[in-house]
Amino acid sequence: MIYKTNSVSDIKIAYIGGGSKGWAWGLMGDLADEKELSGIIRLYDIDESAAKSNEIIGNCLNEVDKAVGKWKYECAPTLEEALIGTDFVIISILPGTFKEMDSDVHTPEKYGIYQSVGDTVGPGGDIRALRTIPMYVTIAKAIKKYAPNAWVINYTNPMTLCVRTLYKIFPKIKAFGCCHEVFGTQNLISAALSDMEGIQDVPREDIKINVLGINHFTWLDKISYQGSDLMPLYKEFTNKYYESGYILDESSHWINNSFTSANRIKFDLFRRYGIVAAAGDRHLAEFCPGSWYLQNPDKVKAWMFGLTNVSSRVIDLKKREERSERLKNKEEFLIIGNSGEEGISMIKALLGLGDKITNVNLPNTGQMQDIPFDCVVETNAIFQKDSVTPVVAGILPNPVNGLVLRHVYNQEAILEAGLTCNKDLAFAAFANDPLVTCTLDNAESLFNEMLFNTKEYLAGWDI
Amino acid sequence: MIYKTNSVSDIKIAYIGGGSKGWAWGLMGDLADEKELSGIIRLYDIDESAAKSNEIIGNCLNEVDKAVGKWKYECAPTLEEALIGTDFVIISILPGTFKEMDSDVHTPEKYGIYQSVGDTVGPGGDIRALRTIPMYVTIAKAIKKYAPNAWVINYTNPMTLCVRTLYKIFPKIKAFGCCHEVFGTQNLISAALSDMEGIQDVPREDIKINVLGINHFTWLDKISYQGSDLMPLYKEFTNKYYESGYILDESSHWINNSFTSANRIKFDLFRRYGIVAAAGDRHLAEFCPGSWYLQNPDKVKAWMFGLTNVSSRVIDLKKREERSERLKNKEEFLIIGNSGEEGISMIKALLGLGDKITNVNLPNTGQMQDIPFDCVVETNAIFQKDSVTPVVAGILPNPVNGLVLRHVYNQEAILEAGLTCNKDLAFAAFANDPLVTCTLDNAESLFNEMLFNTKEYLAGWDI
Amino acid sequence: MIYKTNSVSDIKIAYIGGGSKGWAWGLMGDLADEKELSGIIRLYDIDESAAKSNEIIGNCLNEVDKAVGKWKYECAPTLEEALIGTDFVIISILPGTFKEMDSDVHTPEKYGIYQSVGDTVGPGGDIRALRTIPMYVTIAKAIKKYAPNAWVINYTNPMTLCVRTLYKIFPKIKAFGCCHEVFGTQNLISAALSDMEGIQDVPREDIKINVLGINHFTWLDKISYQGSDLMPLYKEFTNKYYESGYILDESSHWINNSFTSANRIKFDLFRRYGIVAAAGDRHLAEFCPGSWYLQNPDKVKAWMFGLTNVSSRVIDLKKREERSERLKNKEEFLIIGNSGEEGISMIKALLGLGDKITNVNLPNTGQMQDIPFDCVVETNAIFQKDSVTPVVAGILPNPVNGLVLRHVYNQEAILEAGLTCNKDLAFAAFANDPLVTCTLDNAESLFNEMLFNTKEYLAGWDI
Amino acid sequence: MIYKTNSVSDIKIAYIGGGSKGWAWGLMGDLADEKELSGIIRLYDIDESAAKSNEIIGNCLNEVDKAVGKWKYECAPTLEEALIGTDFVIISILPGTFKEMDSDVHTPEKYGIYQSVGDTVGPGGDIRALRTIPMYVTIAKAIKKYAPNAWVINYTNPMTLCVRTLYKIFPKIKAFGCCHEVFGTQNLISAALSDMEGIQDVPREDIKINVLGINHFTWLDKISYQGSDLMPLYKEFTNKYYESGYILDESSHWINNSFTSANRIKFDLFRRYGIVAAAGDRHLAEFCPGSWYLQNPDKVKAWMFGLTNVSSRVIDLKKREERSERLKNKEEFLIIGNSGEEGISMIKALLGLGDKITNVNLPNTGQMQDIPFDCVVETNAIFQKDSVTPVVAGILPNPVNGLVLRHVYNQEAILEAGLTCNKDLAFAAFANDPLVTCTLDNAESLFNEMLFNTKEYLAGWDI
Repeated sequence: MIYKTNSVSDIKIAYIGGGSKGWAWGLMGDLADEKELSGIIRLYDIDESAAKSNEIIGNCLNEVDKAVGKWKYECAPTLEEALIGTDFVIISILPGTFKEMDSDVHTPEKYGIYQSVGDTVGPGGDIRALRTIPMYVTIAKAIKKYAPNAWVINYTNPMTLCVRTLYKIFPKIKAFGCCHEVFGTQNLISAALSDMEGIQDVPREDIKINVLGINHFTWLDKISYQGSDLMPLYKEFTNKYYESGYILDESSHWINNSFTSANRIKFDLFRRYGIVAAAGDRHLAEFCPGSWYLQNPDKVKAWMFGLTNVSSRVIDLKKREERSERLKNKEEFLIIGNSGEEGISMIKALLGLGDKITNVNLPNTGQMQDIPFDCVVETNAIFQKDSVTPVVAGILPNPVNGLVLRHVYNQEAILEAGLTCNKDLAFAAFANDPLVTCTLDNAESLFNEMLFNTKEYLAGWDI
Repeated sequence: MIYKTNSVSDIKIAYIGGGSKGWAWGLMGDLADEKELSGIIRLYDIDESAAKSNEIIGNCLNEVDKAVGKWKYECAPTLEEALIGTDFVIISILPGTFKEMDSDVHTPEKYGIYQSVGDTVGPGGDIRALRTIPMYVTIAKAIKKYAPNAWVINYTNPMTLCVRTLYKIFPKIKAFGCCHEVFGTQNLISAALSDMEGIQDVPREDIKINVLGINHFTWLDKISYQGSDLMPLYKEFTNKYYESGYILDESSHWINNSFTSANRIKFDLFRRYGIVAAAGDRHLAEFCPGSWYLQNPDKVKAWMFGLTNVSSRVIDLKKREERSERLKNKEEFLIIGNSGEEGISMIKALLGLGDKITNVNLPNTGQMQDIPFDCVVETNAIFQKDSVTPVVAGILPNPVNGLVLRHVYNQEAILEAGLTCNKDLAFAAFANDPLVTCTLDNAESLFNEMLFNTKEYLAGWDI
Repeated sequence: MIYKTNSVSDIKIAYIGGGSKGWAWGLMGDLADEKELSGIIRLYDIDESAAKSNEIIGNCLNEVDKAVGKWKYECAPTLEEALIGTDFVIISILPGTFKEMDSDVHTPEKYGIYQSVGDTVGPGGDIRALRTIPMYVTIAKAIKKYAPNAWVINYTNPMTLCVRTLYKIFPKIKAFGCCHEVFGTQNLISAALSDMEGIQDVPREDIKINVLGINHFTWLDKISYQGSDLMPLYKEFTNKYYESGYILDESSHWINNSFTSANRIKFDLFRRYGIVAAAGDRHLAEFCPGSWYLQNPDKVKAWMFGLTNVSSRVIDLKKREERSERLKNKEEFLIIGNSGEEGISMIKALLGLGDKITNVNLPNTGQMQDIPFDCVVETNAIFQKDSVTPVVAGILPNPVNGLVLRHVYNQEAILEAGLTCNKDLAFAAFANDPLVTCTLDNAESLFNEMLFNTKEYLAGWDI
Repeated sequence: MIYKTNSVSDIKIAYIGGGSKGWAWGLMGDLADEKELSGIIRLYDIDESAAKSNEIIGNCLNEVDKAVGKWKYECAPTLEEALIGTDFVIISILPGTFKEMDSDVHTPEKYGIYQSVGDTVGPGGDIRALRTIPMYVTIAKAIKKYAPNAWVINYTNPMTLCVRTLYKIFPKIKAFGCCHEVFGTQNLISAALSDMEGIQDVPREDIKINVLGINHFTWLDKISYQGSDLMPLYKEFTNKYYESGYILDESSHWINNSFTSANRIKFDLFRRYGIVAAAGDRHLAEFCPGSWYLQNPDKVKAWMFGLTNVSSRVIDLKKREERSERLKNKEEFLIIGNSGEEGISMIKALLGLGDKITNVNLPNTGQMQDIPFDCVVETNAIFQKDSVTPVVAGILPNPVNGLVLRHVYNQEAILEAGLTCNKDLAFAAFANDPLVTCTLDNAESLFNEMLFNTKEYLAGWDI
């Protein structure tokens, strides 16, 4: 890297999962919008042709006037070639294919278990984690060998176990996990300010928050805006919209869009616990007992959120593949600018170009009380030159802590099961999941079937 | 107290709940069997006539030849009179009446929630705890005022919250909680030794164990007998009887007796977690998700244990009242000797008459890892002259820890709710209970109804 | 308080020690320089006439053109009147008089114990703490009663025990302690940048640091400037000036000024521990074994720092008293602007007028590993609207931790001794101090003499 | 091993340091006295001829009538041969020779630093530790490879760092450290009972104690005998003999014997801290600031203990070598019976032949509060079949904790220095030692000289 006043050039970034037809394009657009940074992106993907396509698409940006950030994109045929000498590593992969995801999400429906996402916890999240852990073992070993000093940013789910695996295999890794779910809650609070007080268009960054919990089951115990505590306002807001729900973006109404919600679960959790649940309702629902929000499709409808089925994802991918072709052919160009993610501003802060406080997933080193050290938690942290320092976020209220710790220990069990190919331990965790509300016999059948469906990613297991 | 060689006389014991027609008689019989101790028992009960009756019954023992331990029984009309100058305090009360217990156990059945005991956790245990906490606040304050140096032995359920409340109100109290549930598991292991190896009549004390967990959800991660690890034997034993169950005492077959079981839950938990669950199946079931063992009466039957209905307790009480009359009239005398409880041997150890290692409920001061300090846990401890020292019991396996901590934090929430009359917090804990498998709406209705049924014990609450 | 866009008026500040002829003037000047804030300062002092004088002096500022911040100064005759309804409390007192300080600093010289400051640790700091603790008990109780929601900023030494006492007496107090010693080390690093690299006039705020330790014995394990790690540069710098020392401000050469130094102790500690000691050498020396830097006046001279005798403080006070007269008579006006302290910018951040990251003294809630919770530590924290959130600062290297913890436990002992008037415990701590290098007999004589000299502040003690 | 009722035969014990002319003979005598155990002892020593001699001496015991415990002694030429298939490993070695010990103890005298033992802490203990750590790395690796399930009993000093190194290298090792110093304090309390109360000949095992601290700087915060707290008695006893001292065994008066003392240091520490220091005065003195007890030989004499010079050890060895010859020639036989050590009774308890509670050195897993996990502490533990379970010993009073933690962190630094051959870190710890009261320059000269004197044991260091 070459440092100049307020800019850094010759940055090297390895993008693992660089064939992505989504996140990668957002990142490319963000980088093109950022004139203080420039360098090389090495795209690595197990689907090398996808990485090749993105190499073409990314380099096209240099022909776009608005693209002030200049980057060279290169397809890296191996992990080693992507990593050697790199300054940053971005990991954003799909662990397995839609075939496995389909099993994760829909096989449990046979036993009356519905999942709104299926990638974090719940039966789907558990099995996805078992499939992902060996991939992250490989990645962690490669980083240890080829790029031990690089900063590593993870976007893949299950976030907690991805980051946890990286640190387990390579304890000195400089890795953290980024997730935009908390931002959505800041946006909701901004909307509440507008709705209740007429204060409009407050940028989410101006909503000050204290973040604590684990990824996708994150909480805010302090929210304020310019010198006033917003908890009372949020309380009124949740009361006002408790029954009707509140739709943040009318263009993506939950009734048409399985990726959104009317925030009723958020309101219900606030009513009961007095602190703000800070993730999308689809994620929050999956961390709670199955009888609460995901009992059946009618209940889901009543709580005004959606079950994301995998077929919609397949359709979506189809569209993105078509777009990929257009982008390669310069029939269309990537959008320059803010994807809503914070990755670039984090990279800038790590390069010393301005401090930043934001929420991030890191091993617990004291930021959260009553959660074991080393478990990955999500709290605010200060990003500065070559350092990410979590703040002391404190402790969750007892009833919330009970809900969270249940998953913390389940995730620890899954980690151990994944690292040691221990089927009994994996099932013990699986059966403990709050969404696994079926009988133990059924739980075992379901587990075996789901494990079988993902077995090609489970080398060393006895399935 | 007067110390002589190997004996202590003039011991003063306050018995709170001294009108009891069960535990009290067992204790009286045990004391009569113990020639190294003598003194005065002050019986205090909110039902003073019941205490009066026990005064008579207890003093009758002095006419029995076999009664080598000489004690004088006195009814104490007030807590103060019972406590002043006392050396030991025994607390064994029924918090409320069978009317409230009936609501605890049976009201949830309206919503399809079945409980095998209903006095520890689950909806019944939660409500019972809320009712009991103010009673223990009163007791703790009285002990602080009148008998701050006395040793306090609790037998009341919910054990964990009774002991926790005592320490919360009076942190320097010398209190611990005793429970015989672990002994039953030692007896089962002794039976396994006989069944599998032909080694007969091994006394339970000779089965060496490491105990960890919380009361009624207690676990053993080490079991041995005379130089051999019994885990492999217990594994074979659980496999042999996994389907059929194993009945420890044929005279009290589970099919006729709602207080017993065929240990199938214990076997199932061992199969999944690899460590020994060490409480009666009726208790263990209540700590687990409702879908596992208590889904409905048929499931309970299939797992070969019983739901203890309160009407059977009423019938039982009737019999005990009749016996009380006979005992008062000297038509019958209490049985001298071992009730199966360890209270007396603990008192002896605290008096310096021989060390003792046994399991006991105490605030966590390091004996259990990953459970917050001050929460009440059950582990082994060494009883010596004027000291109870817990051993470092270690840490539970991850999946078990997740199950246990869920209750630990729920109990902390109930404690706080009980101390501050906080209905919202109480409901938050109630809804988090693994047995509360109904919808949130139903949970709220149930909670309100149950709270209403016990409202005369909830001074200061807004019900 | 009245919030407008980017400004707050009608702020109420209680200044305890408001008769000060030093800190108070600096604060007044800082406030006058700050146009976003205005309100009332209530000056409370046990010397009411001194507070009266400062009322006059402060209000004179309103006649100064450059004084853009408008404040009204009022002498408050009682603590109660100062505190009721206040938003902020500033505590900056002299515990006792120069008579007691003279004993703190110079009595130990009889036994060959030399102290460079005598207000933090060492025999002088210990005795000063015992005298100060009851004062802070009074202040904490008054804040609890009259201003429980106010933010409390402490400037008094011994910082650690002042803040610790406030929290001990009133655990929900919103207090923190400010100290400028770390700033001096940032200035030194800025000077090193200039000296070694020719990068000039880097403001100290741009030197990014991770702060950890306890007040006046604070350490930096990360230092950077605009994207580069400064540890290697600082290492070279310390080597270059190890023998000669480095004088930051030639106008205050250590040889003429007992308040300054040539930083040789800082260099020596860096050489041995590899991390930056971040306080003035006069303070650092007092935390180390007496044989290292304070063995005798010659050794002090060799290490190029000064012993601050109390007579120089008396002379200094005399000058300040004369200045007070001139200020009251408007012969002179206070200097408007930056005193080098951060109090005002912290107040602004707490009012929601811009976030701030700086080092501060707070009870440990996770920010420092291996130091007990609740002990007061100095680390970075984020100041935001109504919150001060410490960052996870980590853990000191083992040899430094040993030095620091020695004082942590000594301070805990002194706190307990001060609260309970326990002379034996106070002596146990006193004798453990690393500067108390005399024999135990002499230590006892010294302790008794020093305690006697401060006895009028030790109500309840048996002296 | 072959288990029979109440006995175990065919036990295999590897004795590392098996050529010893002291401890080994005591162990042989103890084993011969114990009829419930029999088996094979494999003697390994870097001085193979010494091991050979002990093979002969040990086997001679089988000719002695009183020798009811039958053991076969075999010299093992390699560590591997000693360890393979062994059930127990005893480690009792002299790290280095008297030449190195001479430097440890006497080189510091050049700089006015006197040591009473020089094998635990202080400059001598520090250097001895650096020399010992690599030996224990070798031993730990061999145990991991050849006898991972064996129980390992360490007797070598520095105890703390020997045990710490074993666990650092092989975390699953089943090792603990035994030391008889606490027993001496129990004997002293027994003597106090006799002296003050006329209760004679109370065996030390009947003095019940709670042990906490680190080896050779161990403390008792509870002492009792048959139902009475002995703290008041011990207080009177220490007052009575504070000036005169109390000599436990007149036959070994401190004035003639550098291995004993008149317990004045124990009395002084009790007077100041209110808890019982429980090691020999010679050891206790070395953990305290040099100005307290070891300032100079006159001070040592005034405190009535002795400096153990190495020349006396040389003379002693000469005598033992002569005895070795006589033993080999059957001119003399080993004494059968109690050496005063507890090793055999620990082995019996681990074999399941009776529980035992005694003090032992183990990694901290919760038994001591405020000392980091994994550091080796000395507390009571319960020995049962194949398990050693420490009890929750609690926390030391603040001033004592400060003294203890100073050494805990120093030892951690020395461990790290020893494992990584880090001379700077070693010196940082060395200079922090409370006995190193000389100037920093002298400390550095002394350190270099002492390190040079032991350099042949410091492979990989740059000396």
